[in-house]
Amino acid sequence: MRLTQGIVRAAMVRGKGTAIIDGAQSFTWAEVADRVPRLAAVLRAHGLTEGGRVVLLAHNSHWSIEAFYAAFYAGGVMVPLNFRLSEQDLAVQVADCQPDVLLLGPDFLHLGEGLRAAAGGTARVLAVDETLGALTRAAEPIADAMRGGDDLACIYYTSGTTSAAKGVMLSHANFMVNTLNVSHTLELGEQTVHMHHGPLFHLAAGARLFSVTQAAGTHVFLPRFQAGEVLAEIGRSGVTHLTVVPTMLRTLLDDPALASTDLSSLRYLSYGSAPMPEPLLREALERLPHVRFIQSYGMTELSPVATMLDWEDHLPSPRSSALLKSAGKPVATVEIAVIAPDGTHLPTGSHGEIAVRGPTVMMGYWNRPDLTQATIRNGWLHTGDIGFIDDEGYLTIADRLKDMIITGGENVFSQEVEQALSTHPAVSQCAVFGLPDAKWGEAVHAVVTLHAGAETSSAELVAHCRDLLAHYKCPRSVDIRTAPMPLSGSNKIQKSDLRAEILASRADA
Amino acid sequence: MRLTQGIVRAAMVRGKGTAIIDGAQSFTWAEVADRVPRLAAVLRAHGLTEGGRVVLLAHNSHWSIEAFYAAFYAGGVMVPLNFRLSEQDLAVQVADCQPDVLLLGPDFLHLGEGLRAAAGGTARVLAVDETLGALTRAAEPIADAMRGGDDLACIYYTSGTTSAAKGVMLSHANFMVNTLNVSHTLELGEQTVHMHHGPLFHLAAGARLFSVTQAAGTHVFLPRFQAGEVLAEIGRSGVTHLTVVPTMLRTLLDDPALASTDLSSLRYLSYGSAPMPEPLLREALERLPHVRFIQSYGMTELSPVATMLDWEDHLPSPRSSALLKSAGKPVATVEIAVIAPDGTHLPTGSHGEIAVRGPTVMMGYWNRPDLTQATIRNGWLHTGDIGFIDDEGYLTIADRLKDMIITGGENVFSQEVEQALSTHPAVSQCAVFGLPDAKWGEAVHAVVTLHAGAETSSAELVAHCRDLLAHYKCPRSVDIRTAPMPLSGSNKIQKSDLRAEILASRADA
Repeated sequence: MRLTQGIVRAAMVRGKGTAIIDGAQSFTWAEVADRVPRLAAVLRAHGLTEGGRVVLLAHNSHWSIEAFYAAFYAGGVMVPLNFRLSEQDLAVQVADCQPDVLLLGPDFLHLGEGLRAAAGGTARVLAVDETLGALTRAAEPIADAMRGGDDLACIYYTSGTTSAAKGVMLSHANFMVNTLNVSHTLELGEQTVHMHHGPLFHLAAGARLFSVTQAAGTHVFLPRFQAGEVLAEIGRSGVTHLTVVPTMLRTLLDDPALASTDLSSLRYLSYGSAPMPEPLLREALERLPHVRFIQSYGMTELSPVATMLDWEDHLPSPRSSALLKSAGKPVATVEIAVIAPDGTHLPTGSHGEIAVRGPTVMMGYWNRPDLTQATIRNGWLHTGDIGFIDDEGYLTIADRLKDMIITGGENVFSQEVEQALSTHPAVSQCAVFGLPDAKWGEAVHAVVTLHAGAETSSAELVAHCRDLLAHYKCPRSVDIRTAPMPLSGSNKIQKSDLRAEILASRADA
Repeated sequence: MRLTQGIVRAAMVRGKGTAIIDGAQSFTWAEVADRVPRLAAVLRAHGLTEGGRVVLLAHNSHWSIEAFYAAFYAGGVMVPLNFRLSEQDLAVQVADCQPDVLLLGPDFLHLGEGLRAAAGGTARVLAVDETLGALTRAAEPIADAMRGGDDLACIYYTSGTTSAAKGVMLSHANFMVNTLNVSHTLELGEQTVHMHHGPLFHLAAGARLFSVTQAAGTHVFLPRFQAGEVLAEIGRSGVTHLTVVPTMLRTLLDDPALASTDLSSLRYLSYGSAPMPEPLLREALERLPHVRFIQSYGMTELSPVATMLDWEDHLPSPRSSALLKSAGKPVATVEIAVIAPDGTHLPTGSHGEIAVRGPTVMMGYWNRPDLTQATIRNGWLHTGDIGFIDDEGYLTIADRLKDMIITGGENVFSQEVEQALSTHPAVSQCAVFGLPDAKWGEAVHAVVTLHAGAETSSAELVAHCRDLLAHYKCPRSVDIRTAPMPLSGSNKIQKSDLRAEILASRADA
């Protein structure tokens, strides 16, 4: 099970078909299969060793996928970095993974010297631009290094909103099994045209590099998520598959171009990475009736998919309300358990920490055996999510363990409060978390942004929650925010930033 | 990647759903998940050791699948034997695999003492009947031995029509990856109701034990293939998936009950294991228009599927003629090459030996490192089939390497001649092979059986071939046979037996 086999297979079964569309450029699978061994030769010539790391810091382009496969082909390990991080954060990650080669996009070349120094001064910098194109065309192709199975393929540094970034080690087998797990539900095939607009350094978006290649489909690259561009490109390239986080879906639905764009090619919209507000999902289902919606739940440490809610479960039915709140069922090879703090496995219906076992569980954290041991216990990867499984195997996530609020001795799941707030017609986005409180330990606090032109008050929002939730779960305070929410690299609302803002303003006061 | 995870998952996502239908008996997945650890305890109590073998010699029943999973659960290796073999052949295989436990169906209990002796006298015999049911119900469940990945799961003795039987070793990962490779194309899911009528000791039929379990579908068991029973059971149990070899398809189409049977539940008919005569396939497509036809090509040594021709490729199109002759494209993880006798990889369109690489290639032959080395060379498993790959990745099998006839210095693919003969309206089944010939080295010989009531002559059949084939490919002699064709355990026509009959009759003459 080596990832480069996907390229060989795609060239065999769809050699003349389009592999990549990147603006005005496009490549067939035969061309990609010709280019990858040449780019691999360039990486080798620039010092890449067997098992050595290749850092990629660039906006999405055809080079993104070519760099991944060329690194594997040359016997290397791909480390895609988050271009939204500060230079200092990037330097910490580069110092941690000690790459042989740094592939830097045009917008990041100025970081080259600093990152080279962080890598110890021996790494070589390659610009991801026309120079690399010329080098690739001129290079003699090399033979596949044939890394596969349990060999390390990639390191992904997780955004780590509350702790230092950690390098998740994933093997060729991890990715291949994930691909096989999801392809059936996503109905990937040679006709698939998949858009990559999300940051590929996040595996929720990045894993599709592998699954769409294995299906011999077509990759469409946009440099970044921009709603108007995404909508236009769907029509232009005949995109069949799109994957979004909830905030992106909101932006797409709010874009005035939506009504006038031809989205007839779009058959599948998958979503995940953050809790989906149910009203948003229902609105999307109603406004895009020809699209099959699929939810994925997982995390980088799981390569990344653990459960999926398939498109049939999104169709109207008496059970819709429960199903749309759930994250679906475990995919083929995944085993899920709900575990109590003392390690006991809990029965159907009980809340506890979600744990996962099986061939998509990561190899571990790079250079962090301590963290690996703390996360994978008795063979089970502990996700840090709280949830329960019903008697038909549907998993429902209640909250992040760390986002759960304990107020007056009661557990409050922040996501339940967010779901309640999001049903208010004025609310666009919201975040709920605990603030230190002398009397209650923690007090439930909400930050909301409103739809353009909408108006409401804190008191009205609290009253709205009281209609839907037990009293102790309702926010004790609500901030209506006019500035955009602070977002992580994967477009999740950064509750830790919001909380820090409030605590800082309190300290100032 | 352990196979027992499939049982755990099925019980989680479809615990109340029917797992097994076996005549009047049926079991839910919750019941199967309860019974397997108890049956595993019985196997342990009867001497099964870690990595020890469990031989199964029985007609199909609910015990078939339970015995496989219980053997894995208890840490053992399952060895399903071919009940059509002679006692002597069975003893050779038992002596080879040295089982700890012999599971014998009621029809095979009389072989117990002989097989125990062959195993060295220490093996324990368990009758697969109500005694085992009582033992299982009374046993305390044990914990899963957690064998998986590259651990040996099963040994399948291949029918070996021309050489001594060989034990193919397949791992948990081999089977799991095969399952993931085929599930998408077969559209397996929780709604799947799969009939097992074929001998499960042949992997073409037996692999569905794993894939249908992983999909949490329903297994329907018939003790053996009997056309009337198969047709009746489709209606009775709402069978959605059926898998046949070409001779079975012929029998089903010829059964008078076909016209009056409700086959509306049947959605998928997969076929393979032997070359499919194109006229038979076209007749079946026409007479069963609501059924999706899918072809699999593979062999036991490949866990077993290498390529599939999907149902869309069976639909009428300008390319039908070429597509229906092909075996489809490599499944997701499979890499295929066409190799010359000197080991060179041949280009698109060239005939050569088909070789396969990837995670579904067997671990090797039990106790036969010499044979393993001869079969897996430079990482490629050599299939012994001759064929070519077209520029869209479709593989077409021309013949078995050993069935290719060399006459007057020309290569003749026996299957091409068989396809030509099968288009004659009088021909029901046919087999073509070479007979020793003083002048030509080998001479092309055909044996045919005719449809009930049909008439033709050898001369007419030769003339029919001359209209379709180059002169040198046409049979020099044709036997019209009234007795049924000799079939192997997997219902393939035994050309070696036919050839031996003719050579014996010549020697007598």
